[in-house]
Order: sequence, then structure tokens, then C-alpha cells
Amino acid sequence: MEGPDEFPVAPLNQVLTAISDPIRLEMVRRLSVAGDKIQCSGLYEGISRSTGTHHFKVLREAGVISRVVEGHVVSQRLNELALEQRFPGLIPSLVAAANAEN
Amino acid sequence: MEGPDEFPVAPLNQVLTAISDPIRLEMVRRLSVAGDKIQCSGLYEGISRSTGTHHFKVLREAGVISRVVEGHVVSQRLNELALEQRFPGLIPSLVAAANAEN
Repeated sequence: MEGPDEFPVAPLNQVLTAISDPIRLEMVRRLSVAGDKIQCSGLYEGISRSTGTHHFKVLREAGVISRVVEGHVVSQRLNELALEQRFPGLIPSLVAAANAEN
Repeated sequence: MEGPDEFPVAPLNQVLTAISDPIRLEMVRRLSVAGDKIQCSGLYEGISRSTGTHHFKVLREAGVISRVVEGHVVSQRLNELALEQRFPGLIPSLVAAANAEN
């Protein structure tokens, strides 16, 4: 829960490194498919909460997702607009590829 | 120079890991822009030949590039068709993003 809720989109290399991890790619895939914010616990299975938090941090620092805090509920959302402006078509094609394998 | 010249396209995770390295992304970018095979030495600067060969191997094993041997000349080519069939739009959007940063 450290650091700001939202970062600017990082250089391509950092974005790709963030997304190339299979757990984080699955988080991005779920957020993209949902088209909305998702509570943290709905974004992973089979890993601890602290591991999940670590992966959120990597994605957040790359500017891929942002944290949304509403009362006691913490969610994550995909920075779809900013990503599309910076790297047109990249996230949709990644998500389509991930969907095809899912 | 070990291993076969051509591998099938690997799972998305392996392809992304291969491409997320900045030296390898630049190799892919050059091959895509050229639209043709390129001699190995034309695909990198500032690294040793053995390091270059290592990066080619990672890309080749992920099914991203193939080795073309003609006499004493060794080149690499992008497996554009196979990649496009497996992950439509992924390589073009990655290369466009890399071009935008180049």
C-alpha cells in the first residue's frame, strides 16, 4: 500500500517487463476483460496477499494499473486510455493473445 | 550456433520474456522494419558477438526469429507469418511502440 495511486506510463521496456510475468499478465487480462476496476482479491489465485500486492506495485509503477481506494475497499483498474495513447494497440493485442491461451 | 535453425512460436509468456529485453526488442524492431533477413552483425551494437549470439538464441527458442545460413554468412529473420497467426497484431504493435521510442 505504499507509493502513489497512479503513475505515468513507463518506457516500453518497463511496461513489457511488468506484463511479461504470467501472474501480472493475468491481472491485466482480467482487468481488460472486465472493463472496470476489480477488487484486489479478484485478480489472482494461488499466491499470498503480499505477493499479490508486490505484483500490483510492479504494474502500478509501470503505469499499467492504478489503485482505487473507496473506504475500506481497495481495487485496481487498468490505465487503458493512457496506455492506448502511448502504445496504440499494444494492450488489446496482448490481451487478445492472453485470452487465446486462456 | 547450436540448436535447430527454427523453432515453433513459444507460449505468450516466453515470447514476451524474450522480447521485453531492450537489446532483443531492438533486434526484432530492426528485422521488422527491414522486412527481410539481416546479417547477425547488423542487429546490435555495443555488445560482444557472444552476447549477441546469446540474445539470438533466446529469440530463436521463443520462435520469434530463425537463423538463415548461406555459405559462410549467417543471418536472422523474423518469423512474421507464424507470429501473426499465433498472436495477431502483437508484433506490429510492439514494433510500432518501439519505433515511437526510437
